[in-house]
Amino acid sequence: MNEILKTSHTYDADALWRKDKDHFIHPFTDFSVFHEQGCDLITDSEGIHVADAHGNRFIDGIAGLWCVNVGHGRTEIAQAMAEQATRMAYFSTFNNLSNAPAAELAAKLAELAPAHLNHVFYSCGGSAANDATIRLVHYYFNRLGKPNKKRILSRRNAYHGTTYLAASLTGIESNNWDFDTLDHLVTHLSEANCYRCPQGMSESKYCDHLVKELEDIIERIGADNIAAFIAEPIMGAGGVLMAPEGYHKRMQAVCRAHDILYIADEVVTGFGRLGHFFASEAVFDTQPDIINVAKGLSSGYAPLGATLISDELYAVLGTPQRKGGVLSTGFTYSGHPVSCAAALKNIEIMQREAICDNVRKLGPYLETQLKTLAHHETVGDVRGSHFMLCIENVADKTTKDLLPVEARVGDRVAFEAQQRGLIVRPVGHLNIVSPPLIWDRGVVDRVVAILDESLAATTATLKRDGYL
Amino acid sequence: MNEILKTSHTYDADALWRKDKDHFIHPFTDFSVFHEQGCDLITDSEGIHVADAHGNRFIDGIAGLWCVNVGHGRTEIAQAMAEQATRMAYFSTFNNLSNAPAAELAAKLAELAPAHLNHVFYSCGGSAANDATIRLVHYYFNRLGKPNKKRILSRRNAYHGTTYLAASLTGIESNNWDFDTLDHLVTHLSEANCYRCPQGMSESKYCDHLVKELEDIIERIGADNIAAFIAEPIMGAGGVLMAPEGYHKRMQAVCRAHDILYIADEVVTGFGRLGHFFASEAVFDTQPDIINVAKGLSSGYAPLGATLISDELYAVLGTPQRKGGVLSTGFTYSGHPVSCAAALKNIEIMQREAICDNVRKLGPYLETQLKTLAHHETVGDVRGSHFMLCIENVADKTTKDLLPVEARVGDRVAFEAQQRGLIVRPVGHLNIVSPPLIWDRGVVDRVVAILDESLAATTATLKRDGYL
Repeated sequence: MNEILKTSHTYDADALWRKDKDHFIHPFTDFSVFHEQGCDLITDSEGIHVADAHGNRFIDGIAGLWCVNVGHGRTEIAQAMAEQATRMAYFSTFNNLSNAPAAELAAKLAELAPAHLNHVFYSCGGSAANDATIRLVHYYFNRLGKPNKKRILSRRNAYHGTTYLAASLTGIESNNWDFDTLDHLVTHLSEANCYRCPQGMSESKYCDHLVKELEDIIERIGADNIAAFIAEPIMGAGGVLMAPEGYHKRMQAVCRAHDILYIADEVVTGFGRLGHFFASEAVFDTQPDIINVAKGLSSGYAPLGATLISDELYAVLGTPQRKGGVLSTGFTYSGHPVSCAAALKNIEIMQREAICDNVRKLGPYLETQLKTLAHHETVGDVRGSHFMLCIENVADKTTKDLLPVEARVGDRVAFEAQQRGLIVRPVGHLNIVSPPLIWDRGVVDRVVAILDESLAATTATLKRDGYL
Repeated sequence: MNEILKTSHTYDADALWRKDKDHFIHPFTDFSVFHEQGCDLITDSEGIHVADAHGNRFIDGIAGLWCVNVGHGRTEIAQAMAEQATRMAYFSTFNNLSNAPAAELAAKLAELAPAHLNHVFYSCGGSAANDATIRLVHYYFNRLGKPNKKRILSRRNAYHGTTYLAASLTGIESNNWDFDTLDHLVTHLSEANCYRCPQGMSESKYCDHLVKELEDIIERIGADNIAAFIAEPIMGAGGVLMAPEGYHKRMQAVCRAHDILYIADEVVTGFGRLGHFFASEAVFDTQPDIINVAKGLSSGYAPLGATLISDELYAVLGTPQRKGGVLSTGFTYSGHPVSCAAALKNIEIMQREAICDNVRKLGPYLETQLKTLAHHETVGDVRGSHFMLCIENVADKTTKDLLPVEARVGDRVAFEAQQRGLIVRPVGHLNIVSPPLIWDRGVVDRVVAILDESLAATTATLKRDGYL
């Protein structure tokens, strides 16, 4: 099996590669590799595939970066963007100005979201959405005369982005090596991680344990000092970590009892990845005060994020703080017409093609098939839900001990897969599979077969190099 | 004179207006007005004009929001965006992945920027660019073993955006009413404001005074505790405030002498508004360590920001902080292919049509003509440079006393202008004129005539209402 096919291309691959290497400071880049090897330039795409500047074609196993939910090369979206860009590409949404796609999309999001979330604050992506959310939450409690309610509870291994504040919410330790964070504002609880729950603890006891930790921390810090709890329904970049059954509902109940807002970061789980536009209520039976979405919202065709805010909060946020006062936050590109037009067309496609149905139907098959890989010597866990999955590579399945960092096991698997025509994302010792939501059974079978070969090849090279 | 013309439209204006009012939380909105009146929906555009959902057409006097530098309805840009969205709309630029437009644009920006700025960190707008910049600056000094160099010097009335950190850099007091800011990280110096310099002080003495303040603050806080100074070459939203001649060059010299980085926020001044792609060196003779651009970079057709970083800083940022370490910051949409394609086409148009030349040639005429409005009773100052201008309305020209807030003088002028077919931006008692860079003399004459009528009408209503 080999997915590598030549596709037409017109780029001068070497010149591009050089420009990239000389001038583009890539996010989350290991410069020790970058300065030597530079980047793979992804230049073409169609449906479930992407291709690089040399014409090598790959199955996109990561939807760009949990983004391209409706798949690549959707000319309908491109067309909608071009029409909007021609008709009215940009105008301010500050003061009393607006534009048609931003208004339409806000109404559409209110329709799709849980019933109490009817108000939309726009941004250009997840980091800015989470940052703006905390800013609005602080403003909300200031307005209510509760200026001490400032602390945000997040979780270790959470990923909430990389603005100064969003990075502070993020709980992945290596993410903030040598960066500063706002530690006075954020307290990190334990992650909810069923694969590595304390030894001998049942899932139900583990859930009790995590809820108890929240209660203890609230007691220690004081509910009067805590503004909100923020959580991804399933942790994404932190390792597709699955919480025990009922966790989110119980955590929300504790928060509500203590006047602590519950913020769901659905940047990854939203827009179909778990089979629903919003997973919080449909999958986890929670009613967050705020839900953030991005990525799948526009399927990545244009930068866009949105913060869905409850009627209860809007009753405060939507009144002037004083005479002549405005809600003085937001971005030049809040409600960008072209980005909103892309999102509207994206939602139309998702509904017309019943893409959430596909995820609900095919998701269990994808999970089951991916779990057949658990027989490999290095595969400690295959986990996740529907189109949000991950393989955790380990040195020892029983102890769950990890391989040394320098073995770069995630990179090895990703490399082997890429040689065989599949892009999966390496994150430390993990490989994330978060595909476009348009895969069918045939694609699933092919992907699992490639991963099967790739894991075998990886085991062989790890043995060759003395790591196993 | 009346610019109001009917244009074809297909929207249900009332339904759109309702959706907007019910669901879109607008940035910088006065809800006391919004809940009653809702928004004007800008739905169409062409060249120097925009039109609302009712078919009323206006000259766009604000380029959307200092953005649409090449003007509206550029089908070339729409086409470039659609082609890129079809060919490859989105793929991650994390790790060792990239895309063609991001690589091309990084090289192009390095070519256009001052010689020592060759490395590009992407974001989706000015707020995120400034936020990321400070994060990178802290990381830089941490890496150099100078972890105490954290404080950022900004200025009162500066505008640097509204992420948590960017809002903290911003020095406009009303912007942060009831919002929190990171006061331990930022010290605000005096703004540089030639219109309101201390009484009886010459411009040259005023410059000495401001430079001395910087030196005093460095002495007080200690250079070992200060990371950077950030400044807009001309303050934008803070009121198009002009610094005294030589100010920036002298401020930079002081910073350099104390190992304090100099960051130029060129989100507004960049990409032609002052007649050059980058104003710092060409206009102000400074060599910033970092320059941030956004807005005009893509003429607003797609969300995009870029941070230009010096070779000297990149020598540190571009080496791993430890084994297995990555530069763990950046955004899903860093180097978005469609946004970068829009920017590349925008730059091509600017160069082909010599738009910077138009600004350099026409800018002085626009300034001169706008200054003819100074005869109005309420016009205290007409200031700015080239296509970045503003009228300051006052109660008394001699004392420079302002009208009371509730007179809403900026809103009045904007309303009168809009009735006559021109959009200018009200900011408190100011009206900002920051047009697309494609105006000609005929447009300038028409705009000045509209403003002349609008200011006369405003004076009349202010008198009627007892404010004058």
